[in-house]
Amino acid sequence: MEGFIVDGLTPSEIAAEVEMFAPLSESVRSLIEAATLTAVGSEGIEASRRMIDEATGMLGARQVPTLGIRAGEGGARRMWGNALTGIRNPIAPPVEFHHDGSGLVWTSLQLGPVYEGMPGIVHGGFVAMIFDHLLGEAAEAAGTAGVTGTLTVRYHRPMPIGPLYAQARAGVAEGRKIAVTGWMATSPGGDVIADAEGTYITPRWAVDS
Amino acid sequence: MEGFIVDGLTPSEIAAEVEMFAPLSESVRSLIEAATLTAVGSEGIEASRRMIDEATGMLGARQVPTLGIRAGEGGARRMWGNALTGIRNPIAPPVEFHHDGSGLVWTSLQLGPVYEGMPGIVHGGFVAMIFDHLLGEAAEAAGTAGVTGTLTVRYHRPMPIGPLYAQARAGVAEGRKIAVTGWMATSPGGDVIADAEGTYITPRWAVDS
Repeated sequence: MEGFIVDGLTPSEIAAEVEMFAPLSESVRSLIEAATLTAVGSEGIEASRRMIDEATGMLGARQVPTLGIRAGEGGARRMWGNALTGIRNPIAPPVEFHHDGSGLVWTSLQLGPVYEGMPGIVHGGFVAMIFDHLLGEAAEAAGTAGVTGTLTVRYHRPMPIGPLYAQARAGVAEGRKIAVTGWMATSPGGDVIADAEGTYITPRWAVDS
Repeated sequence: MEGFIVDGLTPSEIAAEVEMFAPLSESVRSLIEAATLTAVGSEGIEASRRMIDEATGMLGARQVPTLGIRAGEGGARRMWGNALTGIRNPIAPPVEFHHDGSGLVWTSLQLGPVYEGMPGIVHGGFVAMIFDHLLGEAAEAAGTAGVTGTLTVRYHRPMPIGPLYAQARAGVAEGRKIAVTGWMATSPGGDVIADAEGTYITPRWAVDS
């Protein structure tokens, strides 16, 4: 597959990369929020913009075309550029998914104001984005790794900016296809704010190979 | 509504704000991409991080809690912090929606690598996020401004990173509820990559007020 790179990094080499790149992403995330909410005047904005452009030039001096999917020693995969989960992608919160071992996949995170739609409310599309990825992880946990076929999200009430909890579990696979359901709240015991169901499909090329 | 701020800015005051803030967002967007794809070593990363943190400190010296929805002279509304459309939110591409006057709403944009899920492919959740907002705009264009009730997205094939076109149109409203359908391709004449249907609902408080 395009963008699949076997770099064979060892666990300690991977840890060193995390130590180097994760703080950079965190710095950019702080900048994103500061730039969105700033109320300084044009002089402060101009001065900060010059610094930002200089940093961009420095980081842009050597680039890869895509971070892609990288496989280290033993085959463990890293998708550090992913728009939702990538630790190297500053637009990602980043979302982390956890597995309970029985097929349940969950996430717990804190969303800041840059994920807003209406004031103080998480963008409904971002809620759908979290479900898309979460349900896909649950499909993979159930043995049907693949792409989204259909995703339906039902919005019961607005999701406030702040703490978010979501979980999903897959049903029984039918051939290359599996159905998954999930829900979202502000905490594991909170009222359901939105729920979702999706079908996930293993591409034919992945089965045949 | 919380976060609804009547600031009464005139069109020329708004234009001056755009001129000040839009380049800042663009600079941060370039930085986001450079930081994601950088292949410079730890020295370059450290040096750029110091600059980024300094810019953050400068911009953070005065902040608003939320950009909210601001209404200028004549009531025209600005949602500049929106995660998908906000010209002041660097995680937003930002997406612009256009109206043909007959109820059709469309968008045409160019997505870069920070919106990736799989390498070279737009994150399926981000596809859903665009549909959520686009269909909401079409609901509003048909006279039923409101929140998403249900959103279903069907993924026919992967959406490549690059040019994206999507359009939507609402059906006939039933009370406070309206159904909307839309589709997405790489261009107006391209094969449909994903399609969506949603129901949008005007909140009771908005009807009663």
